[in-house]
Amino acid sequence: MHEAALHVGLIGLGTVGSQVADRLLNRREVLRRRAGVDLVLDRVLVRDPTRPRAVAVPREMLTTDPADLLEDPCLDVIVEVAGGEEPARSYLERAIRAGKHVVTANKVVMARHGPELLELAGAMNVDVYFEAAVGGGIPLISTFKVDLLANDIQRIMAVINGTTNYVLGRMADAGLSLEEAVAEAQTAGYAEADPTEDVGGYDAVSKLAIMASIGFGARIHPDQIYREGIEGVEPVDFRYARELGYEVKLLAYAARAGERVEARVHPVLVPHGHPLAVVEGAHNAVYVEGDLVGEVLLQGLGAGGRPTASSVVGDLLDLARSVHRQVQHRAAAQFDAQVQVVPMDEVGTRAYFRCRVADRPGVLAAICQVFGEEGVSIASAIQKESDDVSAEFVVTTHRSPDAALRRTRARIARLDVVHSVRAFLRVL
Amino acid sequence: MHEAALHVGLIGLGTVGSQVADRLLNRREVLRRRAGVDLVLDRVLVRDPTRPRAVAVPREMLTTDPADLLEDPCLDVIVEVAGGEEPARSYLERAIRAGKHVVTANKVVMARHGPELLELAGAMNVDVYFEAAVGGGIPLISTFKVDLLANDIQRIMAVINGTTNYVLGRMADAGLSLEEAVAEAQTAGYAEADPTEDVGGYDAVSKLAIMASIGFGARIHPDQIYREGIEGVEPVDFRYARELGYEVKLLAYAARAGERVEARVHPVLVPHGHPLAVVEGAHNAVYVEGDLVGEVLLQGLGAGGRPTASSVVGDLLDLARSVHRQVQHRAAAQFDAQVQVVPMDEVGTRAYFRCRVADRPGVLAAICQVFGEEGVSIASAIQKESDDVSAEFVVTTHRSPDAALRRTRARIARLDVVHSVRAFLRVL
Repeated sequence: MHEAALHVGLIGLGTVGSQVADRLLNRREVLRRRAGVDLVLDRVLVRDPTRPRAVAVPREMLTTDPADLLEDPCLDVIVEVAGGEEPARSYLERAIRAGKHVVTANKVVMARHGPELLELAGAMNVDVYFEAAVGGGIPLISTFKVDLLANDIQRIMAVINGTTNYVLGRMADAGLSLEEAVAEAQTAGYAEADPTEDVGGYDAVSKLAIMASIGFGARIHPDQIYREGIEGVEPVDFRYARELGYEVKLLAYAARAGERVEARVHPVLVPHGHPLAVVEGAHNAVYVEGDLVGEVLLQGLGAGGRPTASSVVGDLLDLARSVHRQVQHRAAAQFDAQVQVVPMDEVGTRAYFRCRVADRPGVLAAICQVFGEEGVSIASAIQKESDDVSAEFVVTTHRSPDAALRRTRARIARLDVVHSVRAFLRVL
Repeated sequence: MHEAALHVGLIGLGTVGSQVADRLLNRREVLRRRAGVDLVLDRVLVRDPTRPRAVAVPREMLTTDPADLLEDPCLDVIVEVAGGEEPARSYLERAIRAGKHVVTANKVVMARHGPELLELAGAMNVDVYFEAAVGGGIPLISTFKVDLLANDIQRIMAVINGTTNYVLGRMADAGLSLEEAVAEAQTAGYAEADPTEDVGGYDAVSKLAIMASIGFGARIHPDQIYREGIEGVEPVDFRYARELGYEVKLLAYAARAGERVEARVHPVLVPHGHPLAVVEGAHNAVYVEGDLVGEVLLQGLGAGGRPTASSVVGDLLDLARSVHRQVQHRAAAQFDAQVQVVPMDEVGTRAYFRCRVADRPGVLAAICQVFGEEGVSIASAIQKESDDVSAEFVVTTHRSPDAALRRTRARIARLDVVHSVRAFLRVL
């Protein structure tokens, strides 16, 4: 029998790309046996061919001209691990239009343009694989696309950004400030020079948009997702949270709400005993609820060259086994464009307030009156002396519309007896 | 375009079968949209067609004659959820020989005959799906077969039997005896009338055989797997374990060991802080280590009609999408028959001993001398007064060959000053 082969063009030879190239070049025979198809790396698009690399790629494979990949009729599949919105999106579109399958680790492109690319791929009868775009090596996309497809997905709760999880963990355990913890994460290689994408929650929003779109079969654009980063969390909040029985995590949350969906990213107090409370360091964990399966938890390293390469090469092997059998475009992801996202104002949440207040009679009464007037019920309260003239007052609430909680926050901040509302976090 | 359809014959209409039938009959339109194929349930094999069922299946679909399914050329796929080795294995073989795809939830058949059935299916160009055979709704088989296929799997550690996990949890938390906890589990519907399959570790052995065979690409038969059940664990062991910083779990463990593999099922002390220590109740958790992905943890309900039906119908949808595209037999699972399982004697483990000893001078010296002579190094020791004439002595060891640990156990039990070795458990 003629040996089947899949010819691969790779865009990007950084942390992920070099691991992908290494596996394709140095484990070719093992992969060939597993897939029944020879995965042949032919061409790699790089910015600087002279730069030293972690993996020995033959110099003649390297090119700086995208046309050498996108217009080469011998290439069956383009693997994109360069990241960023452009030119990656254009490259993927050109590859699909040229009748090539694509495998991408690009969360920004898939979050913002995934449905269009998938639709185009359907028309061109090619496949788009993107397991690596969310959660590194954790099998998430395939779980939604295949394993849980018999379910109506009801809820997705995820600790999906390893950088902020590492930073929050260091703030909680070592008492570091946000700035100190971010600096440490940068030194350890967990955070970018500009940490905004992670710390601001933008990365988690992209990942949630992808998971929720696939999980709910509905197009959910990142711009529809409510977003708060971890900038407002202070070391003292971890101490209060633990005293109350919680850990602080950056949570990506999506749920069906009747005909609509909730989708939001913000810091949250997770109760001890919840599986997401114990997700540590750079790990990611995704908690999925389906109507048949009940609750499933998927956890692992959410980033890094090797875990991400595990998903990229896994996608290639899955594609290879399909192509080997002359099947094309199995994905058939469908999106209901009509689904609406519940405005944050209407979302029911619980909240944690930490206020600096004057240390004199009547203060608590004044604060509690505001809660009462806004119809927000208090679940727990702690007051501690802070210095001679001020005290710290911490409150958690029962479930209320988020608008009422934020009105309460604004009104309390304006009270004469309140110096400031230092923290306002949601509670799971 | 002609509407594609996949015609389904179902064997078994019990807990799982009725959930599968319910989803196929009552969510047909939703599933058709998701798969691009109409899943048509045509025929159900039952023992007693007059028995009342949890789901309304038209009486004319029911049959007691297996030939009505296995010899009906209109059926594309046979779903087997009846369980047990025979006649289920024969039915699956007949279905495959008749050119039908099969989807099964049968762990015994897949553990003992999976490789033969997969090979036969390859020859017949049909697919065998068995996601539901291990871990209920948790996506395990697909994770090994597809998502982690780029990895060399190094280790699998699993709490994979919900019944024993529930029983151990009740012994630990409520101080119940094994018999009391099993009786409670039977009342709650978590344990069979004859609990041997679960309590004795046989169920976990079947599941480990399947996972290890797929994960390592090596044929590992249940008979090659070392097995101990939880019969020897007593309530007091949970108290000592927690004092030492451990929980007691029934562990399914497999690992590469050079050219060989380790594969064993037995109770084990899992250190607090390990993800498997907090797996509660009827939940299952599987911990996989791969050379690229690092560590991945997959957790969820490991049994029950609805979670298992989630996997069965998920398999059907995956199959439907392949068949729709005229692909056949994507599985291509390959098994290296040459791999050897390390004999338990040679396996390096740690152990926990609990002995009833005479309460007089020289006893500990005598015991410790045996450990020393067998080259087993003691990690921790606790002695507690038990009554006037005897005391309880608990020891954990450092890593030693299992043969040395068991020789030590036998020699200690023969000492005059030792009344009995009441417990001997491994430590993770």
